[in-house]
Amino acid sequence: MPTEHTYKQFDTDLENMRARVLQMGGLVEQQITQAMEALVNADFVLADQVISNDHLVNALEVGIDEDCAQIIARRQPTASDLRMVMTVVKTITDLERIGDEAAKVARMAREIHQNGRIYQPKFNQIEFMGTIVLEMLHKALDGFARLDATTAIEVCRSDVQVDEEYHLVLRNLITYMMEDPRTISIFIDIMFVAKAIERMGDHAKNMSEYVVYMVKGKDVRHTTVEEIERTASN
Amino acid sequence: MPTEHTYKQFDTDLENMRARVLQMGGLVEQQITQAMEALVNADFVLADQVISNDHLVNALEVGIDEDCAQIIARRQPTASDLRMVMTVVKTITDLERIGDEAAKVARMAREIHQNGRIYQPKFNQIEFMGTIVLEMLHKALDGFARLDATTAIEVCRSDVQVDEEYHLVLRNLITYMMEDPRTISIFIDIMFVAKAIERMGDHAKNMSEYVVYMVKGKDVRHTTVEEIERTASN
Repeated sequence: MPTEHTYKQFDTDLENMRARVLQMGGLVEQQITQAMEALVNADFVLADQVISNDHLVNALEVGIDEDCAQIIARRQPTASDLRMVMTVVKTITDLERIGDEAAKVARMAREIHQNGRIYQPKFNQIEFMGTIVLEMLHKALDGFARLDATTAIEVCRSDVQVDEEYHLVLRNLITYMMEDPRTISIFIDIMFVAKAIERMGDHAKNMSEYVVYMVKGKDVRHTTVEEIERTASN
Repeated sequence: MPTEHTYKQFDTDLENMRARVLQMGGLVEQQITQAMEALVNADFVLADQVISNDHLVNALEVGIDEDCAQIIARRQPTASDLRMVMTVVKTITDLERIGDEAAKVARMAREIHQNGRIYQPKFNQIEFMGTIVLEMLHKALDGFARLDATTAIEVCRSDVQVDEEYHLVLRNLITYMMEDPRTISIFIDIMFVAKAIERMGDHAKNMSEYVVYMVKGKDVRHTTVEEIERTASN
């Protein structure tokens, strides 16, 4: 029979696991912020830092996955505790992929600025996309920390906005390329930066959908924004 | 105490879960094959079929996730059984994302051919990439079915090849665009097809890394191809 001590230990294990997810989330937020700064300010030192810090994100993913397997094996969680562990397993995969995209942005920042080829104003829209995505990630992590499913509503709405911005950016970049074909290479690099940011948004959306599952016990992936709103606010 | 009956039921549950993963894998293979056919033959009917079948892939992901949670809650697996369940949870996420990319290729096929804008030969390289990626997925699923970690070696090597092909395609497309800027839009669509296929390769690689973890009990994500070779063949 589990003793009171066992229960306490279980709560501590779950609490530690949650804390590590939030630590990983904070690191990934920092990676995005710095990757965007590196891009906008042509800061090579910062770009290199983001690229070399990616392994910290990866190590956290591997470590937290181990924690989850150990909690399942030793503590045999059920119901909402099990949902939390499953949510963590999924969440850290998306966090790690956001980290990959941030490192990709940092690598593109190096590429784009390598010959001092680019002029500032072209990054306004991309910066704006980055700001929205950072907010989305922050809200998804906040929902996870406070067991608050309603944050998913805002995150999913913002994802629609990011997709729209992305298509605007794409259209503008194509116009620039057509105006001056010598710029094609560089604008394709910038296009892949926009794509990376758009994908970060998708991952943040996934994370907030897992929070709805964790809190409400209902899987809302592959449904509509309206369905997520209904489930999250019930 | 678990009875013999309980053990048998547990084995059946695990077997069913594995069978559903392979069913999902087969469906995703078909989605890729048909999306590539739709692209190369300008087949709109097939493209629409791939797009509308994406929900079947999604439904399998959600269903298998439920199975996994139930197996953990009711059967409390440990050691290699637990590793298998964790592997399935991760694998189906990647399978679902490959399915998304296949649907994206089908949507791009529609877009690319809508005005009969494109001539055949440009797809040779892309088709070749698609063939390699299909093989990678097949080997990853095969490794999963036969608990064979060594398939990961070939899958990881092929992923390097896909990345190289992808960069060749990118370079060629940029050359075409520079030669005739009116083609920029269309070649950017084709670029995103190449990108989608390259990502399928990444996901297949992830899947084969999970197989190594499942069989060998060692997490080889974020390591080198050499490290994966060492672990898989030991």
